[in-house]
This record gives sequence, C-alpha cells and structure tokens, in this order.
Amino acid sequence: MTAIDNPYYSHEFHGDYDLVNIGRLDLEDGGVIPECHLAVATFGTPSPDRDNAILVTTWYSGTHQIWRDAYIGPGHALDPETYFIVVVDQIGSGLSTSPHNASGGNAGIAMSRFPHVRIGDDVVAQERLLREHFGIDTLELVVGGSMGAQQTYEWMVRFPDKVRRAAPIAGTARNTPHDFLFTKALNEAITSDPGFKDGEYASNADVVDGLRRHAGIWAVMGFSTEFWKQEAWRALEFESKEAFLEGFLEPYFTAMDPNDLLCMAWKWQRGDVSRHTGGSLEEALGRVTAKTYVMPIDEDMFFPVRDCEAEQKLVPGSELRVVKDMLGHLGLFSVNPDYLPQVDRHLRELLGTEV
Amino acid sequence: MTAIDNPYYSHEFHGDYDLVNIGRLDLEDGGVIPECHLAVATFGTPSPDRDNAILVTTWYSGTHQIWRDAYIGPGHALDPETYFIVVVDQIGSGLSTSPHNASGGNAGIAMSRFPHVRIGDDVVAQERLLREHFGIDTLELVVGGSMGAQQTYEWMVRFPDKVRRAAPIAGTARNTPHDFLFTKALNEAITSDPGFKDGEYASNADVVDGLRRHAGIWAVMGFSTEFWKQEAWRALEFESKEAFLEGFLEPYFTAMDPNDLLCMAWKWQRGDVSRHTGGSLEEALGRVTAKTYVMPIDEDMFFPVRDCEAEQKLVPGSELRVVKDMLGHLGLFSVNPDYLPQVDRHLRELLGTEV
Repeated sequence: MTAIDNPYYSHEFHGDYDLVNIGRLDLEDGGVIPECHLAVATFGTPSPDRDNAILVTTWYSGTHQIWRDAYIGPGHALDPETYFIVVVDQIGSGLSTSPHNASGGNAGIAMSRFPHVRIGDDVVAQERLLREHFGIDTLELVVGGSMGAQQTYEWMVRFPDKVRRAAPIAGTARNTPHDFLFTKALNEAITSDPGFKDGEYASNADVVDGLRRHAGIWAVMGFSTEFWKQEAWRALEFESKEAFLEGFLEPYFTAMDPNDLLCMAWKWQRGDVSRHTGGSLEEALGRVTAKTYVMPIDEDMFFPVRDCEAEQKLVPGSELRVVKDMLGHLGLFSVNPDYLPQVDRHLRELLGTEV
Repeated sequence: MTAIDNPYYSHEFHGDYDLVNIGRLDLEDGGVIPECHLAVATFGTPSPDRDNAILVTTWYSGTHQIWRDAYIGPGHALDPETYFIVVVDQIGSGLSTSPHNASGGNAGIAMSRFPHVRIGDDVVAQERLLREHFGIDTLELVVGGSMGAQQTYEWMVRFPDKVRRAAPIAGTARNTPHDFLFTKALNEAITSDPGFKDGEYASNADVVDGLRRHAGIWAVMGFSTEFWKQEAWRALEFESKEAFLEGFLEPYFTAMDPNDLLCMAWKWQRGDVSRHTGGSLEEALGRVTAKTYVMPIDEDMFFPVRDCEAEQKLVPGSELRVVKDMLGHLGLFSVNPDYLPQVDRHLRELLGTEV
C-alpha cells in the first residue's frame, strides 16, 4: 500500500530490483525517513574479498533501468563477468523511498510531507547499504551521470578512502546558479498546475498539463540546438519534432510522479561538496584521492564543459575526458550509437589504471 | 480607449514616439488589421534627397526605448547628426497596433481575436510607412536585434533594391526548431495561467504568475551560464540572483501584456525568409544585395554563432562579425560596457563601406 498508486514504478516497467530496508535515515536538513528503502539492482558476483565492486548512481527521472539496458553487460566497461555492479536508485526516484510511495512506517512523510533530502543523504544511505547489506567497504569505481555525477562527487569527497576510481559524467560537484534556475523553471511548470494542489493530488494524471510543460522545458535544455536543427530525432523514427515530443519526451515525464520529481529537483539544485569544507570547493575537491575522469558531454547546455573542466582542475591527478554527442545532456540516454563506445573506452581505461 | 488599459505602454514609460496610421493591412496568414498604427520614433533629420535613412527594427518585448537610450546618439554609429534614424516598434509590441490596444476601427480584433501576424507583415507595413509617410525609398542601413534581425533579413530578401546595408544582430533568417521550442515554453508559461482565460483576461495583473514563470524561463535561456556563474548581475547592484530576478527580469515582463507577447512570439516562431523561395534558404539569401554584417553574440544560447554563421555563408559578400558578451542574448540590453563599443565599431565600419 503506497500513498498513491502509480504503475510506472513497478517491476513491470523497471525489471528486477530489490528493495532493501536500511532503517532510519536522519537527514542533513533535519528531517527523518523512518524506514529508508533503497531499490537496488545488481549485476555480476562479488569476489570473495569484496574487491570488485562498482557503484552506479542514478540521475533525475532515471533509474537502474537505463544503466542495465545500455551501459552494463558483457563487452562493456561495466562488465558483470569481472565486476559486481550495484546500481542504487536515488531517494525520490519513485522506486526507492519517495513521496508517492511513502507508506507503512513512512506514512507520516507521504506526498507533500516528504522531507528535504540532499545528495549527501543518498550517499550516506548508499554507504550503509553497501557495508551492511553487501559487506562492501571499498569501491573499484563510482560512476553516475548528471545527478549521478553529483552523488559520485559526494562519494569522492565524503568517503575518499572508500573510492578508488570515480567517473562523474555530465554533472558537477557544486551545482551552478544557472542550473538552479533551470531546475526552478522545471519545478514551476509542475507546481503551477492547479491539479498539483500543493502536492496533494490523487494521481499524477491530475498534473499531466504541468508534467507536459516540464517535458517541454526539457526539450529546450536537455538536447542541443544542433540536435533539433539536424532533426536527429528522425533516427528514432519520428516524423516531426512534435511527434517526438508527443511520442517520447511527454510520455516519459507524464508517467512520473510530480512529488518524486520535485524531491529529486530539490536535491539537484543544492548539490555541493563544498558543504564539507565551509564553502571552499578547492579544499573539498582537494581531498579526493580517487583516480578521476571528469566526463562532460560537449553539447551539454546546462552542465557545459567549461563548468566541468573548472572543477576537474581542482581534483588532484584527474583527467578531463570530453564525450562528444550532438544530443547534448540527454546523450546520457545512449541513443546515439557513437556515445557509449566513448564512455566504455574512457571507463575501461580508468578501470585499467593502477591506483 | 483601448481594449484593456496597461499603463506600461505609454509615453510616460516610452518617451516620445508618434503613432502613424498606415491604413488597412492585409496579412500573410489571411487576417486583416483594419487600421494599422505603427509607433515610430525618429532621430536626426532627413536629407533633402532622403538618402541618409536608417531603419531600426525591434525585438520581442523591446521597443524604440532601448535603441534610443543605448544605441542611438552622438558618438555612436547610429548618429542623428549624420543619419535620419527611424525606429519602428513591431506590430504586437504594445505601442503599435497590438491585441491589448486594438480599439476603434480595430475593436473587432482585440485581445484573443487578434489575427496572426508574420515578420513579412511588419516589413510590408514598415516599407509603406517609410515610403508614404517619410518619402523614403532607400535605406542606408537596416539594423535590428533578435526579432529585429528577423525583420532585417526579411527586408534584405523582400526588398533587396531598397537596402544598401544590413546588420542582423543576434538573430536568424530562418527560425530554428530549437528556438521554436524555446518560444513554445515561453508561451505555455503564460497560457497555462488560469488567469489568462484564453486571452480574455481583464488585466495583465491577472496573469502575473504566468508572466513571472515566463520571466523565469528567460533567466535560463536569455543569459549565459557564465553570466550566472560570475554573478554578473552584481554590476547592476543586486545582492543575489533572486533579487535580480525579482528586481529586474520579473518586473520587466510582468508589466507587459500577455496577448501582445504571444502575438510577437507567434511571429518569432515562424520567421523564415525562405517562404519567398519555396523553402530554399540558399536561394532566398542569394538574392541579397545589401552589404551585410551578420553579428551574433558569442554566448547566445538560442541564436548560437553556429546557426548565424551558417546563414551568413549564404549571403553574398557578407561578413561574420561576432560580438563578445558574457551576458548572452540579453547582451542586447547593452548592460555590459564592452558590448556597445563592439556594435558601434562594426556598424561604423559597415556604414563606411561604399556600396
């Protein structure tokens, strides 16, 4: 029994995953999740010494699904024949504890009552999960895209001794003000829908207009100007940009839960590793001991290479590995056949580095 | 007596301008403006031979005001001591005939009944105004930014014999699909406000929430990521990005009329000189005989240099003159002290070119 029913967040749509109760999670901003459940998908087998683990963190609106379908598998850098790969869906993802599914012991924080969660809370929860549930103390690699990159950076700074290698893709260690405003526009598209009712709607379908406008803003910022100009959506067999919106971006987002998206967005807006060091990004990133490849996407409109490179220069011994993809940020979906071979090449090289 | 009263569109806020009735305007999309009034501000004196005229076209939400205050004057390329400078506010600008001020003979097209207007309609109206009202047949220069660039391109292609020089700044000859989607998001921020009432609100104040969200999307796309990162708004004496939004962008847009903005946006979305040549942009721009400087702004997020340069290459004898401004598209406001000297230098050189 969840707060509201949304069939999108199910095994039918997301395949196999386990729900692990890691117990009470006290949050950085003062709230509490009484029973924090993390949705976890694993691939491969842990070595006897637990020294072959890779953690994958997830992005806004994304889950383990895209990692399973595109990034993980034999022949990829994230190869389950070699590594034990743990993908943890973030709090608010709709699969892990989230506003829409808060029930039972979490009934008190359902829907609009869900507390503010920070990137650091996710990372603390993931560390507990790995240690207590899987017996994993050290990670061969932490990798994630977008908000997953925020979590990756948080791991690098918060638990430097536990991360041997790190690959933040298309994301930053400290969220930029432009990104904050972009996310604000996304949020307002949702909350301005009269059907949102301050978060106490009966179904995500009540907020479909707001979710559709939210998808429309993603269309502007998520892909590059060139993606639209070259009509790259034709490769996905759509007839027009309107058909692509209606057949791809809109169904993708309108299936989701508004409060869940807002929970993730609040985190995204405030991702900032310099919270550990009194606001000094230089000092925070200076703590990193993981071998790090910073991997922005060249056409990304809101995590531009320039911002990622500025941070990369603060990470000792790191390298900048720019991924070329005309899709821009949503190149993360791995639609372009040239995208994943680049990611694989960089990750393979990173995993091959002695640390 | 206008359809609704909006004190922003007045001499108090926009200084001196004349309203010239150019008569009935039959529109490309089939509608009619029974009595098309154009708001016109002039600077300088026409020469006896009428061979010193410069036409300035206006952008979305902008009027002659910014041109008067920033671009025109002694010491600038647009020098009234040498040239007779005519700034024509576009149809839908709120000063020229627009949805909110349609009255008298235009009462039948007030508010939501306002017909679709295209960039070509503006240019036809401007040509008539210049010829019939000012006795001007040939223009030494046509210059405009953003939607003003769209009108400039339209002049170059529609009336090649009448334009000796042209300077489209931060805009394109054929609107891009990405720009269409950006404008769609702007429009939807307005029309989704329940107070909009399908265009039949009693006051723009009824749509203040939608106009504020519209301003929020401008914050994301109108300035560059770097503008926000470097907190360039501090130069305007704001304390925070929130204060800048609340004290600058929001009051700027919430003062305006929703239907007027939508009228301009519809035009903007469909600006396309290749309508003259069955869809061939190459053929349309190949008609241009004006000496042309194409002037994108380097940090523009929705009229990127790449798009402007692709068109510039199709204009015979043209030159690409990139203006550097970290503000991005809204550099057009001439807030950065380094901006206008660049524009002046290029325009002065262009005006000095024998044609």
